[in-house]
Amino acid sequence: MGKVKIGVAGYGVIGQRLADGVALQKDMELVGIADLAPTLSIRALKEKGMPYDLYLVDGADKSKFDKLHIPVKGNFQDLIGKVDVMLDSSPGGVGGKNKELYKKAGVKAIFQGGEKNSVADVFFHGYANYDKGIGVDYLKLTSCNTTGLIRSVDCLDRRYGIDRVAITIIRRVADPGDYHRGLTNALQMDKAPSHQAVDLMTIMPHIDATGILVHTPVTHGHVITVLAHGKNGKITKQQALEAFAEHDRIRIVRIDDGFLGNASLFRYARDLGNPRGDMYEIGLWEDSIVESGDNIMYAINIPQESVTIPETIDAIRACRSMQPDSKSGTAQTNKFLGLGLWKK
Amino acid sequence: MGKVKIGVAGYGVIGQRLADGVALQKDMELVGIADLAPTLSIRALKEKGMPYDLYLVDGADKSKFDKLHIPVKGNFQDLIGKVDVMLDSSPGGVGGKNKELYKKAGVKAIFQGGEKNSVADVFFHGYANYDKGIGVDYLKLTSCNTTGLIRSVDCLDRRYGIDRVAITIIRRVADPGDYHRGLTNALQMDKAPSHQAVDLMTIMPHIDATGILVHTPVTHGHVITVLAHGKNGKITKQQALEAFAEHDRIRIVRIDDGFLGNASLFRYARDLGNPRGDMYEIGLWEDSIVESGDNIMYAINIPQESVTIPETIDAIRACRSMQPDSKSGTAQTNKFLGLGLWKK
Amino acid sequence: MGKVKIGVAGYGVIGQRLADGVALQKDMELVGIADLAPTLSIRALKEKGMPYDLYLVDGADKSKFDKLHIPVKGNFQDLIGKVDVMLDSSPGGVGGKNKELYKKAGVKAIFQGGEKNSVADVFFHGYANYDKGIGVDYLKLTSCNTTGLIRSVDCLDRRYGIDRVAITIIRRVADPGDYHRGLTNALQMDKAPSHQAVDLMTIMPHIDATGILVHTPVTHGHVITVLAHGKNGKITKQQALEAFAEHDRIRIVRIDDGFLGNASLFRYARDLGNPRGDMYEIGLWEDSIVESGDNIMYAINIPQESVTIPETIDAIRACRSMQPDSKSGTAQTNKFLGLGLWKK
Amino acid sequence: MGKVKIGVAGYGVIGQRLADGVALQKDMELVGIADLAPTLSIRALKEKGMPYDLYLVDGADKSKFDKLHIPVKGNFQDLIGKVDVMLDSSPGGVGGKNKELYKKAGVKAIFQGGEKNSVADVFFHGYANYDKGIGVDYLKLTSCNTTGLIRSVDCLDRRYGIDRVAITIIRRVADPGDYHRGLTNALQMDKAPSHQAVDLMTIMPHIDATGILVHTPVTHGHVITVLAHGKNGKITKQQALEAFAEHDRIRIVRIDDGFLGNASLFRYARDLGNPRGDMYEIGLWEDSIVESGDNIMYAINIPQESVTIPETIDAIRACRSMQPDSKSGTAQTNKFLGLGLWKK
Repeated sequence: MGKVKIGVAGYGVIGQRLADGVALQKDMELVGIADLAPTLSIRALKEKGMPYDLYLVDGADKSKFDKLHIPVKGNFQDLIGKVDVMLDSSPGGVGGKNKELYKKAGVKAIFQGGEKNSVADVFFHGYANYDKGIGVDYLKLTSCNTTGLIRSVDCLDRRYGIDRVAITIIRRVADPGDYHRGLTNALQMDKAPSHQAVDLMTIMPHIDATGILVHTPVTHGHVITVLAHGKNGKITKQQALEAFAEHDRIRIVRIDDGFLGNASLFRYARDLGNPRGDMYEIGLWEDSIVESGDNIMYAINIPQESVTIPETIDAIRACRSMQPDSKSGTAQTNKFLGLGLWKK
Repeated sequence: MGKVKIGVAGYGVIGQRLADGVALQKDMELVGIADLAPTLSIRALKEKGMPYDLYLVDGADKSKFDKLHIPVKGNFQDLIGKVDVMLDSSPGGVGGKNKELYKKAGVKAIFQGGEKNSVADVFFHGYANYDKGIGVDYLKLTSCNTTGLIRSVDCLDRRYGIDRVAITIIRRVADPGDYHRGLTNALQMDKAPSHQAVDLMTIMPHIDATGILVHTPVTHGHVITVLAHGKNGKITKQQALEAFAEHDRIRIVRIDDGFLGNASLFRYARDLGNPRGDMYEIGLWEDSIVESGDNIMYAINIPQESVTIPETIDAIRACRSMQPDSKSGTAQTNKFLGLGLWKK
Repeated sequence: MGKVKIGVAGYGVIGQRLADGVALQKDMELVGIADLAPTLSIRALKEKGMPYDLYLVDGADKSKFDKLHIPVKGNFQDLIGKVDVMLDSSPGGVGGKNKELYKKAGVKAIFQGGEKNSVADVFFHGYANYDKGIGVDYLKLTSCNTTGLIRSVDCLDRRYGIDRVAITIIRRVADPGDYHRGLTNALQMDKAPSHQAVDLMTIMPHIDATGILVHTPVTHGHVITVLAHGKNGKITKQQALEAFAEHDRIRIVRIDDGFLGNASLFRYARDLGNPRGDMYEIGLWEDSIVESGDNIMYAINIPQESVTIPETIDAIRACRSMQPDSKSGTAQTNKFLGLGLWKK
Repeated sequence: MGKVKIGVAGYGVIGQRLADGVALQKDMELVGIADLAPTLSIRALKEKGMPYDLYLVDGADKSKFDKLHIPVKGNFQDLIGKVDVMLDSSPGGVGGKNKELYKKAGVKAIFQGGEKNSVADVFFHGYANYDKGIGVDYLKLTSCNTTGLIRSVDCLDRRYGIDRVAITIIRRVADPGDYHRGLTNALQMDKAPSHQAVDLMTIMPHIDATGILVHTPVTHGHVITVLAHGKNGKITKQQALEAFAEHDRIRIVRIDDGFLGNASLFRYARDLGNPRGDMYEIGLWEDSIVESGDNIMYAINIPQESVTIPETIDAIRACRSMQPDSKSGTAQTNKFLGLGLWKK
């Protein structure tokens, strides 16, 4: 069987990382990416020598690309015609319109968290409901916070049983380099419950979840505190650590080792030489884990730019029935992304 | 009976506000304040025309004050000799040394959160354990976060019963104008459990508490999310609101009214014309209150510079047996500070 | 002669401060303020007991005010009918529309920096071109940065002669409490030359000015570095200091005294007990003054929320011919605002 | 002739980048790096599979490394014994002590900006005074701001002649991931003149320079505004652009292309796939260039973590007499670092 052919629509913060992640999968082929304007990301692609072919979406002004000597391979329709699955990371709302094109072409698509749930047949997470995505045409990924949160809750739930969760999301307000949004010396409240708690319940309907989200003026990763209640009684810190330690997309860190906060994890990823200083794993502070009755409380770090990439690739595997279950699907993704290697 | 005579040691962020708060109490007299060096706060006192008399602590270089034409009334011993109660807001650790002087002079003292608990006979909160402070010589106030947190938990506990609390503290990392500490584009983790959860259990031993603290690069108030478990079953949002609404040191705010976060509360206090833009009340977001099983979850704002002032004045009342119980003691403090007036 | 009657349109960051500043002028009467919605500022006015009468502009929904028991004195037309001069601090662009109403009513008006220059007959600064404003109907104030910048340049120019200026504006990106704009961990460039340099040349046409503006993620005051060229040769640091020291709206500060930056000045103003922690004076760091050939270089702090208030009041004096020249006009404003007192 | 053997002392922010930069030079060999403790950077080195050999400096506790299975090749003396030139990026002050070891071993050394000038025989910049470094034993690099500043001033000076410079440094206060220093919502002043202006005069004694430095709470690059006076009269914007455009370590950017500030440049470097999101070039905004009499004014971006790497490698070339002059020396460094390629 040949490689599964993939296209990426929207070469922004997420789209770039999707393209890079897919390019690492030996059983997939990145056919190309599509965008509208010669953004910084497209200019960087050009300066790197066009490792990926560029297609232009409707409304793009090709002359702008020509002027910058950026080679264009074709239009969006051309790209759609060549792929098995489109990863749509267009700006919020655009994915819904693109879906019509995918439908017409009989191409499957996976949308990111910015789209409405209704755009897809299944709201998907690689660990928590891989089965639901098998063979399905239109999937939507959980957003970055929800993706990382569910990783950790599912990890405990699978082994010990969880029936109630309360979260506090300390949200980074912008990505590094964002100038179109920002906050200066202010914390900002969202109305409760946070959508992440609601989304968790959609993906894991046996859990009752609520939570509060507070925006903070930082860029290098969200922090979430999670209070999870053991369905079958107390989960000890030791038990929680054992479960987390085996998860290939969770990285246990300690303050005493120098991981003082979200910025330490960003710095560490840079020092690792990871492209863009990205990290696919969520960080989980061992020093944050505390017990309270039958509840276990802990704090995780969500690298918002890259955390959804592995689960999106899982979604390709599910919708194309490449692997039959979560265990084998996520394992294949992890292998090609090199996840979990450092634990061995 | 004459007015109770009060001195303030350490005219910094807290000391200035203690002095201002005491000066408003009709049954107290602010004798003076003591400090070491002509800091900005002392220079401002001078520019305002010396509303409070200044005494110099040991080690102060009087010539520096003379050069700036700042009048000095006497030394620390002089001040101690004139007062009934010293409010000690010296830098952490200094209060412990000062205690020897207070003891020798037979003067009562109230220390702030920066000192060790052992400096005092009682770890005090105006609402939660006023009785414990009655007639006692040495009291220590809870820190700013703990003071505000306990206000809200005690408020629910008193009416409905609370037996378990889990908190997430989103801590402002510095006060406006601080240059000796700061954080830039980073969230910083503390080891769990946070001392505030531990302190709450010291003051309210019938409650089991834990929590995680995360430092954030802002200056205008901490935000705490609280998950409180009803000892006697579910507490509804409506019930919680009713209790909070009656508390003179809790201000219920709403996002839709423009209270978007901690900076809105600071701005509002400035617009009110409150000196220094201070607020004695904690803010509590109505939109943040959510129920989860028998738990009620909500978010509060802690104006770190001024929140402990009312409870410190309560402590004067308790240690001097000015009022016999929490209800009458806090009511008297509130009256002179004008707290709760806006609710009427 | 009776007091000059003043109204304020737009009770926002600037409008509130204009009202407070006018209320201090013994030869003026603040008739009232006008706004559109029950913003936080209006709610604070209510909580303070309505020290100023409130009028509603067109489009306001009175029922919203009624619901909050905020008394409304009348509509905008009513207010215009009662005043001699309107201070228009409406959101940018609205002032231009309001002008039609002022014209019809034969009322003079003074607009803030957000409006286009064309809205006014004269682009005004209390020190640099008071004469131009005498008797004129429509004036526009320089923006906050330009107002403070011109104070310092005019101060040197008046005494020693200046013919060339180059500035770097390190701009605070938002006011405390702003949630509608912000920047997170980023410096942002503006196209050069900055409008402040251009505006300076409009007000002081004998000076050639240019400059670069960079936005920074802080809220407590802009900092401007100024390089000013002596028309008649070298200006020494000592000479510059002498000139600055005599200016009632310039406050010379030193790093060694504790004035480490813009946040120290904000803290100092709070400690002074100034309403809202405001300061009318610009700060000027003695330690920043350096000579370079015939140039003198220095750094100033611009308290963006309050710096234009004195010059706006000067504008009232000019347009109403209350005082015949800059010297007497600014002196009267300074007297009522208490400016320069601390120097004596 | 064999490759020049290089060691790096201090594997921190700068040391890591020096090692990576040297590793790219085909005519040099990176023998190893030395450090004291298993920092995050050393842990990352381990996780990457130890691409560089690790030596331990005096005082290091080897058992800590053993526990983490981090292989240690030898001690600092061993490393010194194997190299021709040591790049010393130890914490400030340590380099001075290390120098004794280098002297004893007859090894040349190049120190970073944190050391005192007296540690070295020559204060060095690859473009401005390469000649001075030829054959010399001990060199000290200019600091990050000075290195980038001199690149731009030397570029203009070489072609048009510059005799006077005034700068404003808008300094990033910490690197990404720094928790030991930081600033929150504050600009902080330094006493003028800034050391960078003084250092420029040391390297380029024919220029009179002064300047003011202001710290800002950001991490992604300093911004400097430069006002340079043409010794031979006016330098036009067009002329300046022509000179800058030919420089391999200057990258001209435009706001309209999306380079809105320092954070855009960091993002662009990440998108380029540059290790750690680093950039060796300074950014220079075309839109910032303005003329004022015989002065030309412009703004540059200094990527503080990586900007000194090329000039440090130039220093190796100079001290080892690998190339006879600035032109050939810097060209060789640029070739191996790939600098200027994107312009072709």
